[in-house]
Amino acid sequence: MALIVQKYGGTSVGSIERIKNVAQRVARFKAQGHQVVVVVSAMTGETNRLIGLAKEIQSHPDPREMDVLVSTGEQVTIALLSMALMEMGLKAKSYTGAQVRILTDAAHTKARILSIDEENLRRDLDGGHVVVVAGFQGVDEKGNITTLGRGGSDTTGVALAAALKADECQIYTDVDGVYTTDPRIVPEARKLKTITFEEMLEMASLGSKVLQIRAVEFAGKYKVKLRVLSSFEEEGEGTLITFEEDTMEQPIISGIAFNRDEAKVTVLGVPDRPGIAYAILGPVADANIDVDMIIQNVGADGTTTDFTFTVHRNEFTRAMGILKDVQSTIGAREVKGDDKTAKVSLVGVGMRSHSGIASNMFKTLAAEGINIQMISTSEIKISVVIDEKYLELAVRVLHKAFNLEQAA
Amino acid sequence: MALIVQKYGGTSVGSIERIKNVAQRVARFKAQGHQVVVVVSAMTGETNRLIGLAKEIQSHPDPREMDVLVSTGEQVTIALLSMALMEMGLKAKSYTGAQVRILTDAAHTKARILSIDEENLRRDLDGGHVVVVAGFQGVDEKGNITTLGRGGSDTTGVALAAALKADECQIYTDVDGVYTTDPRIVPEARKLKTITFEEMLEMASLGSKVLQIRAVEFAGKYKVKLRVLSSFEEEGEGTLITFEEDTMEQPIISGIAFNRDEAKVTVLGVPDRPGIAYAILGPVADANIDVDMIIQNVGADGTTTDFTFTVHRNEFTRAMGILKDVQSTIGAREVKGDDKTAKVSLVGVGMRSHSGIASNMFKTLAAEGINIQMISTSEIKISVVIDEKYLELAVRVLHKAFNLEQAA
Repeated sequence: MALIVQKYGGTSVGSIERIKNVAQRVARFKAQGHQVVVVVSAMTGETNRLIGLAKEIQSHPDPREMDVLVSTGEQVTIALLSMALMEMGLKAKSYTGAQVRILTDAAHTKARILSIDEENLRRDLDGGHVVVVAGFQGVDEKGNITTLGRGGSDTTGVALAAALKADECQIYTDVDGVYTTDPRIVPEARKLKTITFEEMLEMASLGSKVLQIRAVEFAGKYKVKLRVLSSFEEEGEGTLITFEEDTMEQPIISGIAFNRDEAKVTVLGVPDRPGIAYAILGPVADANIDVDMIIQNVGADGTTTDFTFTVHRNEFTRAMGILKDVQSTIGAREVKGDDKTAKVSLVGVGMRSHSGIASNMFKTLAAEGINIQMISTSEIKISVVIDEKYLELAVRVLHKAFNLEQAA
Repeated sequence: MALIVQKYGGTSVGSIERIKNVAQRVARFKAQGHQVVVVVSAMTGETNRLIGLAKEIQSHPDPREMDVLVSTGEQVTIALLSMALMEMGLKAKSYTGAQVRILTDAAHTKARILSIDEENLRRDLDGGHVVVVAGFQGVDEKGNITTLGRGGSDTTGVALAAALKADECQIYTDVDGVYTTDPRIVPEARKLKTITFEEMLEMASLGSKVLQIRAVEFAGKYKVKLRVLSSFEEEGEGTLITFEEDTMEQPIISGIAFNRDEAKVTVLGVPDRPGIAYAILGPVADANIDVDMIIQNVGADGTTTDFTFTVHRNEFTRAMGILKDVQSTIGAREVKGDDKTAKVSLVGVGMRSHSGIASNMFKTLAAEGINIQMISTSEIKISVVIDEKYLELAVRVLHKAFNLEQAA
């Protein structure tokens, strides 16, 4: 007997029919003698419908009330799924985030989980219940409803698995696992049986939307065994996210992630003196704009420097406005921007022990005439920013160059 | 400065536009220096939509999960109304039933309020906030979400007014007050400026759907000043529900209530012995069927009796089935039923001190050839059950016979 936490996303519970299918899958696990906690999202479209209502009233809806509003989405799903489980003869009980007491900080619409009271859940599980928990939501110290931000249901699933010391956390989604890259771009893309946490972190943060990055971080921190599976297939092992020690030998490159949402801002000819990076990025951070890649090069004349960073494309106009405002203060010659860029990244823990990955990557792109605008590396990834129009081509040729269509 | 509780029903908050209208009305009261607590229902149609989803899964949805499901309806409205108030520059804060801590018993889908923590609300009011509370819902001792049953939002409004010792509880609805009878049937029906609690109780319980009977009971018990108003009119005093002492002289008859939902069950020729009423009604009560009128007559032979009662038309088939089952046990000769009946009632506290009301009523109906099937009286009402097809006629001729179109 194992304790399994299963998380089903919005499309997996997007209709009454699909909710019944989820109930059947849960029933099969119960029949095998497992204890099951199910975490669910709002039915597809529901969260957007609610946000739409709010925006008819306030262009920037009040965050506290927004959380009160959108948290109803998951509350509807937990009730319906519990009913579906009971209709199959199982014992089931629903919990909102507040009822579990998933305690979060008070940062409405993007709260972070502080602690989880697992006592009641455990008693219900021991009593033979399937426990159905609303994902994405919690409650702050004062009893205000909070939400974890988009995709937060994954985080709820992992956090519950950690709190309950579950044997496995299964994330059911509309894909059947993690692929070497997006199969819509590279038909030969191959499903990975395993991927390490570190790789998954890079894949998730680089735009492979299978799993929320916060959920992966959480799983890594609490050593939660995480598996990605399809809720539309009866069978299949999905992809297991492992700790590096689990496998004897790692492939050099596990996958290729990419991101179309990058926009590039370049500040040219700023004085090369201490504090200049803060002078540039401080105002951007103050405006709550997340910055992804940051690169600083020595300028041609040796006394000035060029500074480039990327932001989400939605924030491009705001970021450019801020930089134009501070341009004269910081003494920059010019501020330029480009929102027609994309990022492509090779990811793999095997990279650590192999040289020549970067040069192979650059050679492959050069052979296709693809200009590299920015380069950034970490221990287990190499990212390049290129013209958006070459994105698909770059991913395809790199996938082939590193033989990703063949199992390692 | 007064403390006012305002309750808005589903049609009053049935669209974003209407929610904005409610916000404007609240703002006018705030501008006059009043403290305002607003209680809202789910947007029209939302509760039925949710119940529809549940019934696609379970023909008899689990009550606990049903409450989790339908309570989302009001939660959506409190968030949207709070946003609309903030958009107008007011301070506003929403509360679910659980967040107020409207403590109820554990009778899911028909819970009763046990107590209300008014501390937080009062602090917010003193801080200048409009407090927006979800009607219809509460929480039991164990933290389970409960609902008060259909129309329970009125009860929430009155209970909050009682707990906060509000100066007035205003119930906004789609009619502009309480009428002598339904204006759709009698165009001359007149709006009452005041009505006593006792009369309102009878009117509410007899099918005049302006106010929930439980809300009226609650208001009477805690001496809450209650007013019914239209949310679609800018001006208007509505109808004030008063304590009898408030007015010097009462009209003899205040209004005519009626109810199309009555079905009649008659048990003929049962032995006239102690315990027979319980033998007949016990099984009906055990099946959770509410019984309205009960009449027992001595039978023709002196040793048996005839027993008649009315139930809601929706329960007619079940009630008949139960009686057929127990017929032989109780030794009844026959069980008969009729679900094509209606009840018409004259209501008025002035009735107490005037004789001849009943005979005038019976004479009026007889003159139209309307047969009276059952009669039941209380201190302030006379009810008759008649063939459903005469209902409108009966209400019209009685309204005229008692001069209700003229102010007393």
